Amino acid sequence: MERTKALQIVKEALTEKRYIHTVGVMETAIQLANRFGADTQKAEIAAIFHDYAKFRPVEEMRHIIITQHMASDLVEHNEELWHAPVGAFLVEKEVGVKDSEILDAIKYHTSGRINMTLLDKVIFLADYIEPGRDFPGVEEVRQSAKENLDIAVVQSLRNTIQFLLKRNQRIYPKTVDAYNDLLLKIKGGNKG
Amino acid sequence: MERTKALQIVKEALTEKRYIHTVGVMETAIQLANRFGADTQKAEIAAIFHDYAKFRPVEEMRHIIITQHMASDLVEHNEELWHAPVGAFLVEKEVGVKDSEILDAIKYHTSGRINMTLLDKVIFLADYIEPGRDFPGVEEVRQSAKENLDIAVVQSLRNTIQFLLKRNQRIYPKTVDAYNDLLLKIKGGNKG
Repeated sequence: MERTKALQIVKEALTEKRYIHTVGVMETAIQLANRFGADTQKAEIAAIFHDYAKFRPVEEMRHIIITQHMASDLVEHNEELWHAPVGAFLVEKEVGVKDSEILDAIKYHTSGRINMTLLDKVIFLADYIEPGRDFPGVEEVRQSAKENLDIAVVQSLRNTIQFLLKRNQRIYPKTVDAYNDLLLKIKGGNKG
Repeated sequence: MERTKALQIVKEALTEKRYIHTVGVMETAIQLANRFGADTQKAEIAAIFHDYAKFRPVEEMRHIIITQHMASDLVEHNEELWHAPVGAFLVEKEVGVKDSEILDAIKYHTSGRINMTLLDKVIFLADYIEPGRDFPGVEEVRQSAKENLDIAVVQSLRNTIQFLLKRNQRIYPKTVDAYNDLLLKIKGGNKG
């Protein structure tokens, strides 16, 4: 799909602020894809559509999660997580994107997962560090992202878990799985 | 079992420092049991034996975990976690304690678990706040433990996860399960 057409589709689905964020994620994802050898065209499409379902009504998302038999623990966790798997479903159904790598990168862009693919990591990280993001720790992750994708993703996952702990919120288990899994890979089997 | 006899048994299995810690856990566990309505005799025995396997050789612990078909993810995580389930097994086998509530409180005293029992919480918390403990955050938990057991346990679990994140270590999933589960109970179903 053409970038202009894809951007036009999401522009209609998002607020202006979220659309600007999306363009930032797209530009960052392409940079990261180039830097770390991911498919830049897939990165572009996944980034453009990553927040496609962000403004769907909560009840519509809950209905899709249940009727599509998505992970049953999703409905017990914060609604903030829902737009990612629901987005992957709707991007396939409504936009016609069929590539499973792109759909997975959208699906796991908020939670992460065990065995994240290169494209998963690029989208997850681009969403975290795009130029519009401004929160404690983001600059450190931006610096890491210049050299080591896995370390930058682990830092993002760690910050996310810390943020939830500080706010007295529950932690989605897939995020911990992603953190543990990637840390083990970075450390090369050291259990630490 | 008599307190004197139980203490004699663990004294032989522990270093002096760890024995002093154990006596602190015992005294704290009895106080907490009285305060929150747990069985003080079970709390006493569980506390005395909670670190029974602490100084067993790693290879012996690994062997027991594998041959007794304990949680398969244990061997992939830090050895610091192993003495708890291995301890429960050895306290039954070698000391003859048969009470499943006591054995479970020993088994989960490091990780926590979903649906922690009152005794689980008493032992977990006593281990965390006994008078010999001195680390950032412990005083806040001691204060909470005067009034609300669940809040004090959640604080301990949160501190534990934060400590691991800061040290760049992996997080045992059962600890996150325990934190999520107890937070949901405290908040009364609010997903936050």
